[in-house]
Amino acid sequence: MAVINKIIDIQTHQGINIHNITPQIESVVASTSIQNGYVLVFSRHTTTALAVNEDEERLIQDIKVFLEKLAPLNDRYLHNDLHLRPNIPPDEPKNAHSHLMAMMLNNTEIIPIVDGKLGLGTYQSILFFELDGARKRTILCQVYGE
Amino acid sequence: MAVINKIIDIQTHQGINIHNITPQIESVVASTSIQNGYVLVFSRHTTTALAVNEDEERLIQDIKVFLEKLAPLNDRYLHNDLHLRPNIPPDEPKNAHSHLMAMMLNNTEIIPIVDGKLGLGTYQSILFFELDGARKRTILCQVYGE
Amino acid sequence: MAVINKIIDIQTHQGINIHNITPQIESVVASTSIQNGYVLVFSRHTTTALAVNEDEERLIQDIKVFLEKLAPLNDRYLHNDLHLRPNIPPDEPKNAHSHLMAMMLNNTEIIPIVDGKLGLGTYQSILFFELDGARKRTILCQVYGE
Repeated sequence: MAVINKIIDIQTHQGINIHNITPQIESVVASTSIQNGYVLVFSRHTTTALAVNEDEERLIQDIKVFLEKLAPLNDRYLHNDLHLRPNIPPDEPKNAHSHLMAMMLNNTEIIPIVDGKLGLGTYQSILFFELDGARKRTILCQVYGE
Repeated sequence: MAVINKIIDIQTHQGINIHNITPQIESVVASTSIQNGYVLVFSRHTTTALAVNEDEERLIQDIKVFLEKLAPLNDRYLHNDLHLRPNIPPDEPKNAHSHLMAMMLNNTEIIPIVDGKLGLGTYQSILFFELDGARKRTILCQVYGE
Repeated sequence: MAVINKIIDIQTHQGINIHNITPQIESVVASTSIQNGYVLVFSRHTTTALAVNEDEERLIQDIKVFLEKLAPLNDRYLHNDLHLRPNIPPDEPKNAHSHLMAMMLNNTEIIPIVDGKLGLGTYQSILFFELDGARKRTILCQVYGE
């Protein structure tokens, strides 16, 4: 039984954007010799998220509209009163809505590995959500198994 | 330390329905000799979900009403413009709302195993959500531990 | 490869309150000799939740407002018709909204352990949500690895 850590770096775009990272996760798993186990995908940020769903172009647009309705950018948020927060960096963004979206979606996914391959269903992709881009983001992958 | 893969098949009903699959997961765990570890429950679909909560008849009704308000069936969704999507099967349903519900709920649960039993609290059950039934669904269970 | 189970007890406050339990989880990990692996944090209740996000005072207030809008306390819920539910304890609370919040947030987090430390990003904290306090709550932690 082994534990293997790998880092994936992603350069995202302005605002909210969704990236299908299934190929990168497949590469991470293929770079190990693990046949049965799983990969833990962990995004190391508070305004990003992960989900497993269908990577269909029009659905991706629906998801963005849904998230913007769930936590509207222009609602009143205390976190966005930057002048009332001590010790913030000069480039601190007004991103309370991004935190709320991230919290509702979650920042972790676990995908089983069966016979050396990801155990995803036919329509399942691993989606990475940038909720406050553009930024350089870091995803930690841990592959477990034998 | 062992990794054991098992499949559970579920025949669901029309529309949205919630199934308490705790007995099936208990059976999977009991069929192994693992005393300490966990079971990863992974639904292999993009319009189903999993959650751990209370299986109380009236709460289950509240959950359905809540989900239907969260992502209403009759909202306008680009994914439901079937004529604008290439290469779809002839029986493709209009199910954008089901994808959104699935994404918000998540398709994975991990339940610790302690002394050979699921480490669930008194009121916790493992709930499987069909969000676009009726269908035959497949859940992948991985039991890890020693 | 070892599996180590630990319990954390938390006394919460009235109503909805959010507790940063990162120090307690760090202590659990430090009490083992595990250098690479992860900690599974599992809340054993149906009206609590876990999330990984930023512990910023004003954001925590925004999160509470967001949750109260998502599942309002005063909406009509069947689960709150206590007189129609058999076999309930005499102190059963009207807490359907708490169950819905818990279900949307999730009751599990998995944090990777890298070189003996939690693999959290700079702004990430492990947040425990009491959604129907005050109560004494139990969190099960499983540390896995080598």
